[in-house]
Parts: sequence; structure tokens; C-alpha cells
Amino acid sequence: MTDRTTEAWAYLSRVVEPPCPALTALVARVGPVEAAERVRQGSAGEEVNLHAEARRDIDCAADDLAVLARRGGRLVTSDDDEWPLLSFAAFGGGAPARLRSQAHAPMVLWAIGPATLDEVAFRSAAVVGTRAATMYGEFVAGDIATGLAERDVAVVSGGAFGIDGAAHRATLAVEGVTVAVLAGGVDVPYPAGHSALLQRIAEHGLLLSEYPPGVRPARHRFLTRNRLVAALAGATVVVEAGARSGAANTAAWARTLGRPVCAVPGPVTSSASVGCHSLLRSGAAQIVTRAADVVELVGRVGELAPEEQHPTSPLDELGDIEKRVYDALPRRGGRTAEEVAVASGLPARQVLGPLVNLELSGLVVGRDGRWKLAAG
Amino acid sequence: MTDRTTEAWAYLSRVVEPPCPALTALVARVGPVEAAERVRQGSAGEEVNLHAEARRDIDCAADDLAVLARRGGRLVTSDDDEWPLLSFAAFGGGAPARLRSQAHAPMVLWAIGPATLDEVAFRSAAVVGTRAATMYGEFVAGDIATGLAERDVAVVSGGAFGIDGAAHRATLAVEGVTVAVLAGGVDVPYPAGHSALLQRIAEHGLLLSEYPPGVRPARHRFLTRNRLVAALAGATVVVEAGARSGAANTAAWARTLGRPVCAVPGPVTSSASVGCHSLLRSGAAQIVTRAADVVELVGRVGELAPEEQHPTSPLDELGDIEKRVYDALPRRGGRTAEEVAVASGLPARQVLGPLVNLELSGLVVGRDGRWKLAAG
Repeated sequence: MTDRTTEAWAYLSRVVEPPCPALTALVARVGPVEAAERVRQGSAGEEVNLHAEARRDIDCAADDLAVLARRGGRLVTSDDDEWPLLSFAAFGGGAPARLRSQAHAPMVLWAIGPATLDEVAFRSAAVVGTRAATMYGEFVAGDIATGLAERDVAVVSGGAFGIDGAAHRATLAVEGVTVAVLAGGVDVPYPAGHSALLQRIAEHGLLLSEYPPGVRPARHRFLTRNRLVAALAGATVVVEAGARSGAANTAAWARTLGRPVCAVPGPVTSSASVGCHSLLRSGAAQIVTRAADVVELVGRVGELAPEEQHPTSPLDELGDIEKRVYDALPRRGGRTAEEVAVASGLPARQVLGPLVNLELSGLVVGRDGRWKLAAG
Repeated sequence: MTDRTTEAWAYLSRVVEPPCPALTALVARVGPVEAAERVRQGSAGEEVNLHAEARRDIDCAADDLAVLARRGGRLVTSDDDEWPLLSFAAFGGGAPARLRSQAHAPMVLWAIGPATLDEVAFRSAAVVGTRAATMYGEFVAGDIATGLAERDVAVVSGGAFGIDGAAHRATLAVEGVTVAVLAGGVDVPYPAGHSALLQRIAEHGLLLSEYPPGVRPARHRFLTRNRLVAALAGATVVVEAGARSGAANTAAWARTLGRPVCAVPGPVTSSASVGCHSLLRSGAAQIVTRAADVVELVGRVGELAPEEQHPTSPLDELGDIEKRVYDALPRRGGRTAEEVAVASGLPARQVLGPLVNLELSGLVVGRDGRWKLAAG
């Protein structure tokens, strides 16, 4: 990519508030350099002209790229091999009315970090949730993120306090790949308290934004950002969410994109789990309790979660009659076959066979025509 | 009912290990007195003869009825008005193989308490769960039972330690109707530590058993008992259950009977909630978090749970454009319409209308051609 092309992409990235499908379409048709030229001249067609009107005279593309370069970042576009075309292609489907205006692929992504977008999108899960997380929620977010990372699943989240932060941190701790998608420029650490965390994500994973450097996060940008979290993830896991939560918005995007939505249950007494239970009740999400459940959804075909361990007992193997005979035996002393018949309500002749079987399997001890339960 | 009839029922109740559909059918055909006579003589037909063989010479009916009378109890059969025929009719359906041998209505029920079976069965829910309950589980069981009792729903359970006990106690505390279905005789307090609780249930609610006085609970009797808990309840709520739990068995009975099965979620870190999450994951249960959800399932048509309260914000009412304009305004100082256009990426002429609307609704303050967010 020439400097001129890259500068055109950078200019176009700032000139509209993303997503702007009309501009994306124009670029696809005439290329970024020609598209940038037309936007500057106000000859980009009615719709693009309208969207670019307020900012078309602002050209700080060279400065933006310099900021990015100083941080070792790159501008990723559909020209690049790592552009995760398939992930974004899902936006072609029909979105519900309230999401429709945002239901479009990004035009460019400002990126910092060694992980590549296509690798991430190939095997990843979003772990998201409320900023007002409980200790329980942060523990579970970390536990699931660790399990995902250990199974080579990239952990995508939003870099926020609470669940997001716990997921990023746990992934970094086991040297997994974690991706933070920001609602402002990649050079604007938000929240400020996560500056160091975001720096570590930029060094070991991937920091992503649809917005050029210097752009501050804003309410509507969080919602726009959430669609990218969902789009880059094979499944979205909501760990904790209040009655009003951005995580529910990310979940709605995942559903719109046809990706599995998962919710982690929690105490019904915890307001931080209300959103998760609500997703489960409405059927919008499926329940997950551990990383293996999530891997089954984002993993390769046949990569099934192991069955949960169930404690077993030697009595499980017994048939109904044997169980009734067993239940009719005392721990001490002993009962004759006739007494066992009365206690169990079984005919006497149906009792002897089971008694012998139970004795053979060591569950029952017989002596002098009397039986009792084996010790232990 | 004559003494002779009642004594015949009592004799028949002990002579087989319930349920014994062949005997129930014989009684329906020839009446209890004749059926008892045939059983005694060994002329009750091959199947009944076989089942009654071990105990047919035991006749302590008069003693059993005396024990019951001393405790103010009654023997309830299909001859009685309170017999909940419809609840038990559901056993006619097809049960899975492992439940089939037990999938039959009871023949008689030994009962102590002022509540009547038909009233209970008309509006009730089972609240069940593990004996090894956590404080969380006991709290939630009590909370749901209280909510059910306050809405005149009878609370059915098994009288056990843990969840069962918490449900019974909470119901008694608000003077609701609670029913304990026992796996042994109504005169055999089990567990012994619940003697006082069972006594209070007998005084204010209903103590029930399919077994005659003196019969000790046994493993297979708990499973047989569970089917009656499910049959008497309009819905079954599992509050906490481990990986192996009798509550899952009660839930399976409810499902077999076509009754709703509910599970309360809990921390995924709690082994006492593993069974609930497993029921939810497999789709065998629906999630409930409060009594109102359960009332919706067992209540009258149209008795819907109130919507859960969601916090709202005046910003909820804003359209997309207004939100973007709002997000582009500072808390201090002020921005011109042109500056707002650049910050929001909206065309200048699309900015003024929303600014005026936001000012009218008090969210924004305008002065000298500059706007900022309203305080607070």
C-alpha cells in the first residue's frame, strides 16, 4: 500500500462517523484515493456528501498515521490479507430495526498489536459484562477466559472495568491472545485506569478501533463498538449484566450476526446477574458454566465439551428388584429370605436370586441363611 | 365409609409395595372389601397374588387405623371427595422406561392435617432440592415459598433437610399451606431432626404418605414418593441440586406428567447448583428467579408475572440523531452548532433541530449560540 493510499484510507476514516455504508460502497467502486478526492470536492454523491459535510475539510491523515506508527500500529482495510471478510460478511443479514442503521461492516480498523485480525476471528469468543461486576463475576470471567486461552481461543472484549478487564487480564496471565475493541481512538486509553492493561494488550494481543486517533469514546460509539466485538467473536459470553447493560447490546449483535450467545448464571439475589437470567429466560442466550461449553460452540467440528463428572455408586448398577432387596436388609443382625420378602413386599421366590447376586458383588453378606449389608 | 371398608383399604395398602396397578384395578372392579378377601385367600389373580404373597397374612389394619386416628389423620382413597383424580390421571401417559414401573397413581394416601388434597392439587407448586443446601439455596427456597404462599399457592415438598425444610418453614411462617409427602409412614418422623417441623405441617398443612404407619423410608421409597410430589404440584421448582440429586428425579416425574419444571440458577462455582444448571442446559427445565415466575405457571389463566423493573433514563426516549448530538456536547463551556456537527459527524443543518428539541426537554442548555449539557 502506498503512502498516498494509506493516507486516503485515514482521511476517509475520519470524514464520516462510522459505519457509513454509502462511503464503503464508493471506496469499493473507485478505490480509496479517488473516493477521498471526490469527498473533498463534494462530488461523492448525495448521501456521502451529506455524511461527510461537517468534516470534509479536516485532513489530519498524515498526523493520525504518524501517531499510529509511533505506537507500532497499522491501519487494516479490506486491502489487507488479515481483513476478516467472512466475519463482517454476516452484517449482510437482516438486523432488527433498532440496530439496522449500525448493521454494517467497518471500513477500516486502526490496530496495534502482534495478533492478526484473521487469526483472531478464526477462533475466538467474546467475554463481556457489566462494569459493576461482583467478585463472583470477575472470578468466573477470569476462569472462562483462562480456559478459552488454554484451548487457543482468542478472548475478545471491550477493555472496560469489571468483567471485560477480568477477561483480558486472565488471558494475558496465561499468555493467551486477547483483543480489546475500543469505542475511541487506539491512542485514547479508556478507561484511564486501564491504561497499563490496554498497553499490555497492545504488546501481546490486539488493540482495535474503528475510530482514528484522538477520538473520544461517546455513548453511541460504545454501541457501535459492541457490534465489532460480536462480529470478531465466534460466540459471545455474557458473564454478568445488570438490568441495563451494554453486554445485552453486544449479545443482540451476536444474535443478529447468527453467532451463539451464551450467558453465565449467577445468584438470583445478585443484581449483577439479572441481565444474564433475562437473556436465558427469553431464550436469547444458552446457559454456559465453564470454558469447555464455549469451546464447543467456537471450536472445530467435533470439539465437544467433556461430559461433566458425575459421582457414581455401586448401587447404580442394580436392577429395581435388587435395589428393593438391598433396601430391605439391615446393617446389623440379619434377615432371612422370608423376612426380606415381607420387608420388600417381594414374593419369597424372587428374593433369593437377588440376594445371591448382591453377595457375589460384595454389597451383602450372607451367613447361616441370614443376610445383612456389607460393612462400609 | 364403613369401618369394614376402611379396614379393607388399610389392609390392601400394606399387603403390596406400592404402586401396584394390578391391585388398584382389582379394587376398582370389585371394591376394597371383596378385593381384600380375595387377596387373603390367594384368589386375586396371578399378578396380584404374586405381589401380595409375602405379606398377605399380615393384617394390622385395625392397629394402623388406630395409630392414624390418635394423630387425627384420615385414610384418603378414590372413594373420597378430596381425592385429586385429575392430578393422578396424568400417570396414564407414556413414561420413560426407567420410570415406567412406578408410573401409576397411588391407591390410598395416609393423611394428617387440615388441608385437603383436592384444594392443594388445584393450586400448588413443589419446591425441592438438595439436602446439602447452601445458605443461598435455603434463602432462595424460603423466598420463593413465601412468595407462593402469599399468592395462595400451596407449597409441596419432601420434608427433607436443606431446600425442602426451608420451603416448608417459610410457608408456615406466613401461614401458607404446605404439604410434606413422606417416604415412610406418617407416624415415622424422617429425618428425626425434622420431627417438630413435620408436626407443625401436620397441624397447619398436610402430611401425606402412600405407606401405612410404621413403614421406614427406604431408598426406592424416596423415588416412589418423588412421583407424588410431582403429581400433586402444578409445577416443580428445583432450587439447588447437586450432580446426583433426588430433585432431578422429582423433575423427571414432573416432566413425565406434563407439568412445568423450573430450575433456579446459582453460582457456577457452587456444586449445589450443578444439577439446576444441568436441567437448564438440557432444556429439561425453564429458568425461574422469583415466585411470580412460578405463579405464572400454576396460576389462573392470565395471571402473568409483572415485568421486571428496568431502570430508565430520559435519554432512552431520544432518537439516534439526538443521541449523537447529545454525545457531542460538553459539560462545561459550550459548542456552536458547527462544532457539534464536526464532533458528531452530522451535517450542520441536521444539528440545529435536535439541539432545540434537547433544550426543550431540559437535557441541554443553549446560550449565545453555544450549547452544553444541562447540569445533573
